[in-house]
Amino acid sequence: MNEINLINRIKTVLNSDYIGDDCAYLKDLGIVITQDSLVQGVHFDKRIMTPYQNGYKAVMSNLSDIAASGAEPYYMTVSLSLPNYTVEEDVEDFYEGCKFALKDTKVQIVGGDVTGADNLYISICVIGKTENRRISSRSNAKIGHKIITSGVHGSSAAGLKILMENLEPDKDLIKAHLMPVAQLDFSKQIAEQIEEDYAMMDTSDGLIDALYKIGTASNCTMSVDFERILYDPNLEKYFDNYKDLIFYGGEDYQIIATVPVDLLPKLKDYTIIGEVIPKEDSVVKINYDNDVENINSIDKCFNHFGL
Amino acid sequence: MNEINLINRIKTVLNSDYIGDDCAYLKDLGIVITQDSLVQGVHFDKRIMTPYQNGYKAVMSNLSDIAASGAEPYYMTVSLSLPNYTVEEDVEDFYEGCKFALKDTKVQIVGGDVTGADNLYISICVIGKTENRRISSRSNAKIGHKIITSGVHGSSAAGLKILMENLEPDKDLIKAHLMPVAQLDFSKQIAEQIEEDYAMMDTSDGLIDALYKIGTASNCTMSVDFERILYDPNLEKYFDNYKDLIFYGGEDYQIIATVPVDLLPKLKDYTIIGEVIPKEDSVVKINYDNDVENINSIDKCFNHFGL
Repeated sequence: MNEINLINRIKTVLNSDYIGDDCAYLKDLGIVITQDSLVQGVHFDKRIMTPYQNGYKAVMSNLSDIAASGAEPYYMTVSLSLPNYTVEEDVEDFYEGCKFALKDTKVQIVGGDVTGADNLYISICVIGKTENRRISSRSNAKIGHKIITSGVHGSSAAGLKILMENLEPDKDLIKAHLMPVAQLDFSKQIAEQIEEDYAMMDTSDGLIDALYKIGTASNCTMSVDFERILYDPNLEKYFDNYKDLIFYGGEDYQIIATVPVDLLPKLKDYTIIGEVIPKEDSVVKINYDNDVENINSIDKCFNHFGL
Repeated sequence: MNEINLINRIKTVLNSDYIGDDCAYLKDLGIVITQDSLVQGVHFDKRIMTPYQNGYKAVMSNLSDIAASGAEPYYMTVSLSLPNYTVEEDVEDFYEGCKFALKDTKVQIVGGDVTGADNLYISICVIGKTENRRISSRSNAKIGHKIITSGVHGSSAAGLKILMENLEPDKDLIKAHLMPVAQLDFSKQIAEQIEEDYAMMDTSDGLIDALYKIGTASNCTMSVDFERILYDPNLEKYFDNYKDLIFYGGEDYQIIATVPVDLLPKLKDYTIIGEVIPKEDSVVKINYDNDVENINSIDKCFNHFGL
């Protein structure tokens, strides 16, 4: 089963204007809402993650969806389905991890449920407030917009590989995988200051995934210069396929945005990696010194049915 | 693991004012929010339910939580975790069932996600608007309030028993289990007209469960006359333990409310089953013709860890 085909079929059944971005923008209420589920053995592995880290990361991945919309996270519900053999201390640790992930935010956990299951499932819903912020949509990239990102790519996937394959430990890469940080401040500065519609996504499913989805939804080509993409230099040192990690590795939770040039002087801590150009043969175009790579598929990206 | 103990431990970790009712009331936004998860093999059985019925019932159980709050359901997100072997037609049928459950409401499905898993897992989040409605809390029952309900009890559990044990089919009881109806109109009339705080719950986990939770949270005794409780007469005909089905059977999705006497002339289609009285030795007191049953535990109720 292919995730994108399936989502298209669901969209047809539901015939909803909302489904497309990771958050739904409910204008009448002044909020966005997002929901994401994580399954043990699919999205995380209990051999390498503690319950505390699980809680932390489950919350962060949802905060990252809110960051990608441009809203400010405010309320959260957490639903846990637990196998019978779960010990209560692990559940407490999970919620302590959730709390730690929320420490620099205004978010309160206001509900959810706890239920039995054959495996550990986590489903989190977050509401963000949109007041004084312009909300993004992946279909809003415009020709001439600069493509900017909030940081390094590929570290989380590299950290996962190190943990899963028992490679030489690298503290920063492992931390990038186990304790990532949602880019709330980065998106806030854009959403509060930008004066036109724009596209923004997080890289939860990889850098190319975000670029591809924005390019497809906005019907343009995302032209990126490889040499501008930031990554941890140890990636090149440890991994032959480091470029795949940078392009297709998920869960860095960086932000990709397309913004007009005149916004740039008002922003901090961004990296320009390319530009939105008129539609060419490919959705994503990677420019190297003496070469070009055209990308027209995200089959290599993180696909939750493929794992 | 005991669900109530666990929830108490989680409450201690989170130290949140919100956790207690099935819906969290977010006053600044004028909404309530609820999230509920369903796991195949725990909450439903694929041998007796079609994907369409699953979708329908998953939505209805969440609408019922909103009904219990007194709010009007408005927006919904649906998160599905699916085993690899799932066929896409079944996913479409699931969403068709969701749509059918929403046909008499204003609810739009605005998001969610689809992901892989080893089992079928459904998590639904609903936002309800609170405008012009007084929102209930299970801690708001007052001495002298009448206890009213929206209909019959025990039918869903009886239908489940018939299906699981291949008993003589009874169309109404089976329908009560597979295609229950959330009591949105019943709760609306209360929430729009009542002029004081009140308690309201649904009977998703059983009649006694709702009475017990209201009695405990409100620190009073819920005194109920057995002869006033409505139930399908076939329960008595088919089942020796029909009283257990009426008391402890879940998923009827009826509404229990405690309301002042002066509201009653403004209400339709309610049944008075008892009265809120000062705290006695038991939380729930069932009055029979010549006997009294004192209930101080809900261990017999639907416990999602016990199934």
